[in-house]
Amino acid sequence: MMLAYDGSDFFGWQIQPGKRTVQGVLEHSLERILGAPTPVIASGRTDTGVHALGQVVNFMCVVPIPLEGLQRALNASLPPDMAVRSLEGARADFHARRHVRSKQYAYWIDAAPQRSPLLARYALHVPDKLDIPAMNAGARALVGEHDFAAFMAAGSAVKTTVRRVDLSEVMVRGSNIYYVIEGSGFLRHMVRNIVGTLYQVGCGALSPDDLPRIMHSRDRSCAGPTAAPQGLYLVRVTYEGGIL
Amino acid sequence: MMLAYDGSDFFGWQIQPGKRTVQGVLEHSLERILGAPTPVIASGRTDTGVHALGQVVNFMCVVPIPLEGLQRALNASLPPDMAVRSLEGARADFHARRHVRSKQYAYWIDAAPQRSPLLARYALHVPDKLDIPAMNAGARALVGEHDFAAFMAAGSAVKTTVRRVDLSEVMVRGSNIYYVIEGSGFLRHMVRNIVGTLYQVGCGALSPDDLPRIMHSRDRSCAGPTAAPQGLYLVRVTYEGGIL
Repeated sequence: MMLAYDGSDFFGWQIQPGKRTVQGVLEHSLERILGAPTPVIASGRTDTGVHALGQVVNFMCVVPIPLEGLQRALNASLPPDMAVRSLEGARADFHARRHVRSKQYAYWIDAAPQRSPLLARYALHVPDKLDIPAMNAGARALVGEHDFAAFMAAGSAVKTTVRRVDLSEVMVRGSNIYYVIEGSGFLRHMVRNIVGTLYQVGCGALSPDDLPRIMHSRDRSCAGPTAAPQGLYLVRVTYEGGIL
Repeated sequence: MMLAYDGSDFFGWQIQPGKRTVQGVLEHSLERILGAPTPVIASGRTDTGVHALGQVVNFMCVVPIPLEGLQRALNASLPPDMAVRSLEGARADFHARRHVRSKQYAYWIDAAPQRSPLLARYALHVPDKLDIPAMNAGARALVGEHDFAAFMAAGSAVKTTVRRVDLSEVMVRGSNIYYVIEGSGFLRHMVRNIVGTLYQVGCGALSPDDLPRIMHSRDRSCAGPTAAPQGLYLVRVTYEGGIL
């Protein structure tokens, strides 16, 4: 399943008792439609306020129901801030998290002089004049296989903090700035911490050359602040050998 | 004051005890900043869920405070779903509702095959294939001075149901359809009832030639359903002789 959601009114992806979460709402709809508890697996968790355009989710469906009918039933049952964009059969051993080849995230900065009430849930408003070429130079220094420990949320426990980044670029469309990053996987808060650091580059508080230095430090306190969640979008996920 | 807001989480413009309304939140911020109750007058009310890009509001400010400082203080005090876009002095007798020359509204239809969770608050999703030239022919039949009683919410009490429409047009950008209407003033639910009727034209349930017939009937039951509020935007308001 490819799932899109507006993360604003969810306490993130993961199911939690008494909280409205994406996983909780999705599993509730699936159980209602399929008549049996149906646990789902996502490509990864998203935090409170983070959006998804193409989250990938897999689940085991034992009820013989046509995919098109199931998608229609789900979209009729899900609330307005969630929708199933597509639904296909997968190979029996497919695992939406373990088999990820790459993920793409985008971060939207609204750089208009004044904040817009209609973008408040979807972009971070930054009224400062930002140096885009400097941000881009800093962004591109992250491409490659590196240890991204400096950009990981403090207190996270992972086996390795090495990740491969294939694309890391800042783009401008009118008063909108988009940071796009694609890679093998992401540490907790990694994209938002990179954005917070690139913002400091854009303001002149850091130089693009500081990025490799910060990365090599492996020290979270050298990097910038965590950018607000509402600008972040999980855009797409690709898989080793596809999903079929 | 030119005010923008996301109407989704407000019970419309008008102050109501115990409800979150645009007027209520604005007057609360003004009173906090100016230290005295400051009633405001808008160009007109907007309903629950209806947005504004350029609502015009006037109020009497007896505190000597620079406009730029007041705007900054207001934008710091107002919630993310409201913002003051501009603030200028007006002539002493200026009245944001009585002196309106024209208002422009836009209605956004998301005509993508599937609904998008990120547009749910801002557009009406219509998956049907709509006949845009027919909708446009119907829309243009409304231009001129007419009695719009057929498009007024049942039970409204007004002196006259005659209004002048200067612009009424359907535009397409990708999978987005925008209906724009500008005129001397609007009856309760008038734009949303026109959109509901144009939707029926777009589906082929009505012909563009039915629009004049419906208008002349002065009968609400001849027109289409009331389109959902979330697609509607108050775009701008102009005034007789300006505001200065």
